[in-house]
Amino acid sequence: MPTVTVVPLPPLPEIKPGDDLAALIAQAWWELAAASNDLAPRRNDVLVVTQKAVSKAEGKLVDLTTITPRPEAMEFAEKWDRDARQVEVVLRESTEVLKFERGIVISRTKHGFVCANAGVDASNTGRKDIVTLLPDDPDQSAREIRDRLPALLDIPADLAPAVIISDSFGRPWRFGIMDVALGVAGIEPLIDLRDTPDADGRIMHSTIVAIADEICSAAELAAGKSSRQPVVLVRGVEFNNRGQSEPSVQREVVMPTEMDLFK
Amino acid sequence: MPTVTVVPLPPLPEIKPGDDLAALIAQAWWELAAASNDLAPRRNDVLVVTQKAVSKAEGKLVDLTTITPRPEAMEFAEKWDRDARQVEVVLRESTEVLKFERGIVISRTKHGFVCANAGVDASNTGRKDIVTLLPDDPDQSAREIRDRLPALLDIPADLAPAVIISDSFGRPWRFGIMDVALGVAGIEPLIDLRDTPDADGRIMHSTIVAIADEICSAAELAAGKSSRQPVVLVRGVEFNNRGQSEPSVQREVVMPTEMDLFK
Repeated sequence: MPTVTVVPLPPLPEIKPGDDLAALIAQAWWELAAASNDLAPRRNDVLVVTQKAVSKAEGKLVDLTTITPRPEAMEFAEKWDRDARQVEVVLRESTEVLKFERGIVISRTKHGFVCANAGVDASNTGRKDIVTLLPDDPDQSAREIRDRLPALLDIPADLAPAVIISDSFGRPWRFGIMDVALGVAGIEPLIDLRDTPDADGRIMHSTIVAIADEICSAAELAAGKSSRQPVVLVRGVEFNNRGQSEPSVQREVVMPTEMDLFK
Repeated sequence: MPTVTVVPLPPLPEIKPGDDLAALIAQAWWELAAASNDLAPRRNDVLVVTQKAVSKAEGKLVDLTTITPRPEAMEFAEKWDRDARQVEVVLRESTEVLKFERGIVISRTKHGFVCANAGVDASNTGRKDIVTLLPDDPDQSAREIRDRLPALLDIPADLAPAVIISDSFGRPWRFGIMDVALGVAGIEPLIDLRDTPDADGRIMHSTIVAIADEICSAAELAAGKSSRQPVVLVRGVEFNNRGQSEPSVQREVVMPTEMDLFK
């Protein structure tokens, strides 16, 4: 039967700028496979890697002691008990600010993501005054990891796992965050089931499933709550990778502003 | 290691109004356990049941041949090649219409859900002119199924699986639908990690994870694309059910309008 299995890779060392994340991931997977032979790489495996781990390895860190906040950041921070320097970084990372009130900033990033604090995060950075920014190009980050895994894992290139960079986003109308995809490699982020007859032979409209986002949410369920296990193996999902061009969250999932039906 | 496993239950018969859905689910689970002993019920199992199956069993069906559309439904349907009778039903199921353009209706339902077409769905209903509505009280639907499962499965009450009623919702800013929870029983839909120190000992703010929604998305990944397999077993998720009162999506996940930060 079509079972999906979700297993975190063993803990990685604390990740520092310049670290070879692909090599650390491969080493953790070797460990996992040594512990359980069933978990050696297989065709159509997916690795979900948290944004935080990628940002650290890529050096997307800001030392808040170097930041001079603008007056509105200081005012906001004072009012809502926030760190004005961090608010300043959030504003710098935003191309459009949608909400700036009640201590929360909702904005659009240069990638087109709409999220809290422009993805700037202070937790689990290893140092008090350091925050992480989102990777510059999460699709590219995913590709860079994926491209190196076959050699590191000693597997043929066509067995290379798909790689998804994940982050936790809030959403309107519902409390709670869900993990979604910031970048992908080796997997189309959407599955288009339009024009597929349903069980009654009726043609279904607009059934485009955000499969990469769902995989990130599944991965989150199994992820250790510790930041030391930023990589989760998801096996058994049927996905596509048939495109001639590279798949991309930024190009395929992010909605152009003019198409935003909820706006 | 903390593995999450996601397995669809075997196909159910076509569900009709008045069917005993809990009994059909239990029978499918017996079949699954007979095929694989490992998949017999265990503590902390979660069953994800699609809204469509619940709505059919509860008779939440509308025969479109009985519906007279209002003028604005007819105009909209004409312009966008929709079924005016179905548009009429969508408007009747909406307490607030957020968007009514380009062939798509985004509205708020009486439950407080914001989604396309107020959850009214024509696919997989088994008949051309029949549409399904959302259950009146999806939390109650989940409880009714859950309460009957111990007897039907011949297990102690404290082994009763959690039950989540799922549906596929679009969201702003990103293409693609994700499955989320409409109702829950035996599981708190949110996990509050606030005030939990992270790996650096820093207190994390606003890390409330929509665990029931993430479980629904994980379930969707393993669900057969056929409507005949509307129930998925999710095993291995750490969740809470410690509340004195019954957990509820409507009460705990749906955001009061005045708190909607994205609005």
